[in-house]
Amino acid sequence: MGAAMLTGVITEILIPVAAVIGIAFALLQWMLVSAVKLSPERQTPAGGNKKNGFAADFLIEEEEGLNDHNVVVKCAEIQNAISEGATSFLFTEYQYVGVFMAVFAVLIFLFLGSVEGFSTKSQPCTYSKDKFCKPALANAVFSTVSFLLGAITSVVSGFLGMKIATYANARTTLEARKGVGKAFITAFRSGAVMGFLLAANGLLVLYIAINLFKLYYGDDWEGLFEAITGYGLGGSSMALFGRVGGGIYTKAADVGADLVGKVERNIPEDDPRNPAVIADNVGDNVGDIAGMGSDLFGSYAESSCAALVVASISSFGINHDFTAMCYPLLISSMGIIVCLITTLFATDFFEIKAVKDIEPALKRQLIISTALMTVGIGIVSWIALPSSFTIFNFGEQKKVKNWELFFCVAIGLWAGLVIGFVTEYFTSNAYSPVQDVANSCRTGAATNVIFGLALGYKSVIIPIFAIAVSIFVSFSLAAMYGIAVAALGMLSTIATGLAIDAYGPISDNAGGIAEMAGMSHRIRERTDALDAAGNTTAAIGKGFAIGSAALVSLALFGAFVSRAAISTVDVLTPKVFIGLIVGAMLPYWFSAMTMKSVGRAALEMVEEVRRQFNSIPGLMEGTAKPDYATCVKISTDASIKEMIPPGALVMLTPLIVGTFFGVETLSGVLAGALVSGVQIAISASNTGGAWDNAKKYIEAGASEHARALGPKGSDAHKAAVIGDTIGDPLKDTSGPSLNILIKLMAVESLVFAPFFAAHGGLLFKIL
Amino acid sequence: MGAAMLTGVITEILIPVAAVIGIAFALLQWMLVSAVKLSPERQTPAGGNKKNGFAADFLIEEEEGLNDHNVVVKCAEIQNAISEGATSFLFTEYQYVGVFMAVFAVLIFLFLGSVEGFSTKSQPCTYSKDKFCKPALANAVFSTVSFLLGAITSVVSGFLGMKIATYANARTTLEARKGVGKAFITAFRSGAVMGFLLAANGLLVLYIAINLFKLYYGDDWEGLFEAITGYGLGGSSMALFGRVGGGIYTKAADVGADLVGKVERNIPEDDPRNPAVIADNVGDNVGDIAGMGSDLFGSYAESSCAALVVASISSFGINHDFTAMCYPLLISSMGIIVCLITTLFATDFFEIKAVKDIEPALKRQLIISTALMTVGIGIVSWIALPSSFTIFNFGEQKKVKNWELFFCVAIGLWAGLVIGFVTEYFTSNAYSPVQDVANSCRTGAATNVIFGLALGYKSVIIPIFAIAVSIFVSFSLAAMYGIAVAALGMLSTIATGLAIDAYGPISDNAGGIAEMAGMSHRIRERTDALDAAGNTTAAIGKGFAIGSAALVSLALFGAFVSRAAISTVDVLTPKVFIGLIVGAMLPYWFSAMTMKSVGRAALEMVEEVRRQFNSIPGLMEGTAKPDYATCVKISTDASIKEMIPPGALVMLTPLIVGTFFGVETLSGVLAGALVSGVQIAISASNTGGAWDNAKKYIEAGASEHARALGPKGSDAHKAAVIGDTIGDPLKDTSGPSLNILIKLMAVESLVFAPFFAAHGGLLFKIL
Repeated sequence: MGAAMLTGVITEILIPVAAVIGIAFALLQWMLVSAVKLSPERQTPAGGNKKNGFAADFLIEEEEGLNDHNVVVKCAEIQNAISEGATSFLFTEYQYVGVFMAVFAVLIFLFLGSVEGFSTKSQPCTYSKDKFCKPALANAVFSTVSFLLGAITSVVSGFLGMKIATYANARTTLEARKGVGKAFITAFRSGAVMGFLLAANGLLVLYIAINLFKLYYGDDWEGLFEAITGYGLGGSSMALFGRVGGGIYTKAADVGADLVGKVERNIPEDDPRNPAVIADNVGDNVGDIAGMGSDLFGSYAESSCAALVVASISSFGINHDFTAMCYPLLISSMGIIVCLITTLFATDFFEIKAVKDIEPALKRQLIISTALMTVGIGIVSWIALPSSFTIFNFGEQKKVKNWELFFCVAIGLWAGLVIGFVTEYFTSNAYSPVQDVANSCRTGAATNVIFGLALGYKSVIIPIFAIAVSIFVSFSLAAMYGIAVAALGMLSTIATGLAIDAYGPISDNAGGIAEMAGMSHRIRERTDALDAAGNTTAAIGKGFAIGSAALVSLALFGAFVSRAAISTVDVLTPKVFIGLIVGAMLPYWFSAMTMKSVGRAALEMVEEVRRQFNSIPGLMEGTAKPDYATCVKISTDASIKEMIPPGALVMLTPLIVGTFFGVETLSGVLAGALVSGVQIAISASNTGGAWDNAKKYIEAGASEHARALGPKGSDAHKAAVIGDTIGDPLKDTSGPSLNILIKLMAVESLVFAPFFAAHGGLLFKIL
Repeated sequence: MGAAMLTGVITEILIPVAAVIGIAFALLQWMLVSAVKLSPERQTPAGGNKKNGFAADFLIEEEEGLNDHNVVVKCAEIQNAISEGATSFLFTEYQYVGVFMAVFAVLIFLFLGSVEGFSTKSQPCTYSKDKFCKPALANAVFSTVSFLLGAITSVVSGFLGMKIATYANARTTLEARKGVGKAFITAFRSGAVMGFLLAANGLLVLYIAINLFKLYYGDDWEGLFEAITGYGLGGSSMALFGRVGGGIYTKAADVGADLVGKVERNIPEDDPRNPAVIADNVGDNVGDIAGMGSDLFGSYAESSCAALVVASISSFGINHDFTAMCYPLLISSMGIIVCLITTLFATDFFEIKAVKDIEPALKRQLIISTALMTVGIGIVSWIALPSSFTIFNFGEQKKVKNWELFFCVAIGLWAGLVIGFVTEYFTSNAYSPVQDVANSCRTGAATNVIFGLALGYKSVIIPIFAIAVSIFVSFSLAAMYGIAVAALGMLSTIATGLAIDAYGPISDNAGGIAEMAGMSHRIRERTDALDAAGNTTAAIGKGFAIGSAALVSLALFGAFVSRAAISTVDVLTPKVFIGLIVGAMLPYWFSAMTMKSVGRAALEMVEEVRRQFNSIPGLMEGTAKPDYATCVKISTDASIKEMIPPGALVMLTPLIVGTFFGVETLSGVLAGALVSGVQIAISASNTGGAWDNAKKYIEAGASEHARALGPKGSDAHKAAVIGDTIGDPLKDTSGPSLNILIKLMAVESLVFAPFFAAHGGLLFKIL
């Protein structure tokens, strides 16, 4: 078998060093963003040096309104309102989620503790029958602890992301006065702060947890990494509430604001007279930033856990080869370094001189990070792995070579890039699919919706083939471990992915602030250009999130099956098949709940906005201020109330199915939910993205064709607005929440697997 | 084991007798419908006696316009135009389909003949190794013959259905002058003609084919019933073109007519000034009647074939117990008798006196037929089955008792009823789901679409549980044979189901003819009431079609797996899993094609209708006649052209996957397509039905709430019309076509199984 080139001690040092570098880089970016002052003194140019990639005088002729101190005061005010709204929502959310966390922690402890009747005696290990492992009670305690750790890290990730975004939005607006390049860099740097903090934090906490747990577990790695899976469960369950709650919040506000403001009152988006406008901007931060952050953190934590738990019963764990065992963490460490270099390409090596440079710059980030990371994976696979080893494969050990594992990770990484580009093709208005959808607006909203739905369905094809190929290759080469590291590969450039992704909502907010602060048309145009690119990157980000979720869930599913000691999941048994068909139904049930929630909350918002327009004299004329706080409260209350039923569906299904129907039916449910959910998630998010950009295509009127459909207010444009509104809950609530549905059910099953294997299937036992 | 009470000879007699009774009953109904004269003489009251369930003088005060001979002439004219359009479309379709049939027949022969290299030597049987079976070449020949038989029977079924419907529509209109009861009976009787002809024909042809094939096969029942599966493939492949071609035809015309007529020109539905109005009415007949007919015939043929092929390798086949072997055919024979009695409840035992009686009368049909059939199944199971026997279960024989088989059939039957009622609840405007959707129109089309989509998703839950329970019970009791007979149970009342179902489009057409013939408002109100009930029954019919398709495909899947000699389909192997995820994607790909086809064809239709309104002087004023023929031609050409790509997707997928990736991946594809497709099919058809009835709810204004949303032309009504238009392709094209996708891929795999098992999986063999 041979040992890895990297010794255990060096691995112990390298991982935290990479994490610390990531955090330091994030702080540096924050400092640079902070240089933009939000107080009404005469500003010094941001950073005051050439680090921004611009000679300060280069864009001087574009500058405008720099000396208008009132604008700065107004921006600061609006930023404050958004930040307060977001903070207060997240705190309310965390109160409820805190209760859930406590209850669920107790549940984990009780279920897992009961496996051996709360005995404190050591037991023979499940896979190495000749050795003794720590008692099931220890597994219960440590799983609970790692669940809490994961949950807290997720909450902190989401919260920090939101803080950074609400810190950066007004600064981006102010920089937009100096030109589109400066604004881009501010928004992108802020995104990078979030990306790097999240990636580095996730890695560091996991690393520390493993080392602390090792103090107790010693040589019992099987038990150690079983307990670590709680980390993934914690991360993902918080992500559920973040995505669903945040998603409902943001879309209730957005849909409500648009239905009255744009459609009934004919006032522009983000107009300060609209009472729901602050809630709308808060929503971008709690939904797209905090929600997305905790979602991707969850994927990252889960794929690491899935890889670790499979590795612990493979030769890495059996031979106690610490470096090889930490292969997933080393890949992530390398990812941080690669993303750091990649970021410099956007902020320092190249310059954004015009609007048309923005999208290519963002796309370049994806390509550069993927290319560099391929080399990075090669290096890690070469130095951290023995040249040959065995991987656990449902009851037997499969022989694998280190270069085979390189291919597993790399194919995941490249599949991610393919998904990203396909998503871009189907959602950017530079290509024919979105232009076709825009064109169908000529005959009204109905054809727009028909074409949009068809586009979403069609956009599923290539991503599914990409996922299928990566599954086939990595599964064939290295069984379930291969799938887990393929997922990690797709997520290895998470810092860059998140930076690009967070950039979108920050730009969206910046535009909103410009509008509300009454800044000039020209500045609004610049922020709009940033935002349009952000729409596409948001769709790409969702594509990544879904693709990685599919791989992650399969890896978790495999780990669950291994841990529940099932050797086949045969579709031709009634237990499995009914699981499969019911599992495939769950995404529909879940989407029905989330979409109806958005619809209901939006109706409430509409009533309130209408009420204010009708009862506050002078509101339309701009002489009176609307009551923003009530709208913020409606969104907050609605999302808290409405996130409970879908949350319960996801959290309870594995528990009920596992306890009453047993592990085989549960396997069917997981497989069914996975293969069906991934399709709906992709199609929903692409349909929504396409409608949004079809509307923007007509509004921008950049081509002959687009001008024939426009301008704003034309019948075709009105039809496009309807499509955009329908797409909102699809792309920002139900679609992305489905990632979490499939991942979370899988990781929950994994954590509870010992219980289900011991006591599950009550109903069949009785019959 | 014991023998059945029924001897083989009696079975040989009973089955054709039941079929002949069914055909005779259908002809009797036709005669009664024919009594309504379509020539401008003074009419005698239809039937002239009390058989219609009405004393002629009872409704005399409702009669109006009976003496207006011009109206009769006009009705006859319009009926002629519709009938000609439908006939010419079907003939065009059959030309293309004929070419396909010939090519595919050759393909079947070549693929199956090549299994043993076209050898004419007898081979050891697959399952009874000690016996000799007929050569693979015989299987190739007879499979090809039964494929052609199935295809021709399907074409004839669809064509007859269309002929009857176009014969009945104007007669229903004329009867509506005498009252809603008379009109109902005419429409319902015509539906019954189609239902009984189809059920009896399907049974008779299958029965004759088995008996003829037996002349050659003799004791080799394994080979005989393998060859018979071609019958299912033939039926289903014609159904594919019928559903997809007809679906595109009907919705292109409908959407096109509505977009210009209702939305742009503000003229009512079915207004004779609209150039697309004849095409629209033709569409109802070729899509909803001919398409639905061949779809359900396909399901019927396939579930019979699946049951027969499994039985042939169970103790029925091994012991050559002809009566037990014919159990599926006996169930269908009993179904014809039960449906005959049930029909009398609608036509003779009860009377329809008012509009509010219509829906209950139709619902009563479902309940009565289900209750009677339960007894019928009991009788058949008691007299036709040995008290105990064995059923083939993936490599082993499972012991089953006759009462267990009774439960399998009965649970399928009752699951169908549950699906029917759930569908009614979610699509009838008498209940809160549709009323909620209507209510959401207050805030515009966007919320209407969001609520409608959510409703469709939600409506999936209970049907899936019903299907899952029937699968679990019948699978557990009698393996794959249990599933096949459960599907047959759901389809055993097919004659009644089809009667109810065909009633809808006939009433829809009757309304169209009343409008075009310029008949009074009151008559139009009566046909509208018939039509509204028809909308709900259409949704119920689709629910049945989907539910039975799910069971049928699973049964076919099981038969395929048995025949391909696979003993497990393990999700935990990469070959199966990639099949599963790609299979789950296929319904999306297919829907993307069909929806876009409708969209594209509708756009073409819109252009033409607009052109005619703009270029034909006096058209809007009603002084000039539009050019109906061009619109009919557009629909015809578009549907022929557009049905090819989705058809190719469905027909080629099993061939490509089986040949290159082998039977395991193909199993995954079938399972994935099944569990994912059934959800989309249910949700699409219910969403569409709900939108349609939400619009009707607002138009009818029957409650305080409905009046607050209306009247016609209000903003809420406009939003409802948009929803209705979006729902059209969902409920009538892509949704119901998915049934065929899942069934057809399964039956095709079954027919080609010997080839795939012998020569499939080329790609993996090379690698």
